[in-house]
Amino acid sequence: MEKQHGPWAVKSRELKYKNPWIEVREDKVTAPDGTPGLFGIIKIKDGVSVLAIDDENYAYLTKEFHYAIGRDSIEVASGGIESDETPLEAAKRELKEELGIEAQEWVDLGVTDPLTTFVEKNTFLFLARKLKFGVAKKDSHEIIAPVKMKLDAAIEMIMKDEITHGASCVTIFKAKQYLDSR
Amino acid sequence: MEKQHGPWAVKSRELKYKNPWIEVREDKVTAPDGTPGLFGIIKIKDGVSVLAIDDENYAYLTKEFHYAIGRDSIEVASGGIESDETPLEAAKRELKEELGIEAQEWVDLGVTDPLTTFVEKNTFLFLARKLKFGVAKKDSHEIIAPVKMKLDAAIEMIMKDEITHGASCVTIFKAKQYLDSR
Repeated sequence: MEKQHGPWAVKSRELKYKNPWIEVREDKVTAPDGTPGLFGIIKIKDGVSVLAIDDENYAYLTKEFHYAIGRDSIEVASGGIESDETPLEAAKRELKEELGIEAQEWVDLGVTDPLTTFVEKNTFLFLARKLKFGVAKKDSHEIIAPVKMKLDAAIEMIMKDEITHGASCVTIFKAKQYLDSR
Repeated sequence: MEKQHGPWAVKSRELKYKNPWIEVREDKVTAPDGTPGLFGIIKIKDGVSVLAIDDENYAYLTKEFHYAIGRDSIEVASGGIESDETPLEAAKRELKEELGIEAQEWVDLGVTDPLTTFVEKNTFLFLARKLKFGVAKKDSHEIIAPVKMKLDAAIEMIMKDEITHGASCVTIFKAKQYLDSR
């Protein structure tokens, strides 16, 4: 094979690692200037991030140990999209599972690419309003603490690096921008 | 070995793939509820993202084909941190290489974790002010077009999914928040 991928010519593709969530392949390429090179590309299951905000402008977030960064991270409800789900269905499921929240109003906040050079993964962003509070239905291995704060306090936490998860930061800022512009 | 990693017990670690930019390892673990499992963890070289804004509030971004997502992406100047560099040194180098811009004033906008469960990578964020314009010094394989727009237009592009790269979105929103609060 020799296939064009934008300005790169792909000479070969080889699967290097695979588990149910990620797939790593290596592409041997020719760079736009003609030099040979390689890319290790990671495909991660697409995901959703959902920010629930109530009528008094309180935001509902999660605090959980995240494996790769090895510490607790405050994030909006987030998770992978199952193969039989739409992004919105996954968002509803994650919000219910992680925080026990259902919502009557769903706002599509678009999409973010957490990384663009080595990682292929879309994260779909939502704002949930008109909330109904119930009981969380976590996976048995998840230890998630709910975190409630005013939306402006969440922005402050981003500015102080107390919220660093990319998709959570983008969801919070987009929600604020959306609500302010209405 | 058996090592505790937050609520997870790590039974073994195995390197599965490595190139100069990424490293993939597989951890066999015991979940907090006692069930066995595995994590594929990707370590990607730490990076920087820099937004340059001039005295008239014009922002300077880049447009380039990004390999993993397979399309052109509008992003702030971004790249990996070399082993002999501090994040600030990498930010200065990337801004000069990609856009030919030097800056007298540098604002530390903190850090983002693009992903937190499967990927370990920090991206350090900067705002560059008091700009001096020169000639870009790209790597020979980089084909980068400069993109100039008002800061508010960049926010609008994020809202319309025309800018989706996570660290770029976070840098742009943080820069706006920083400038508005002064």
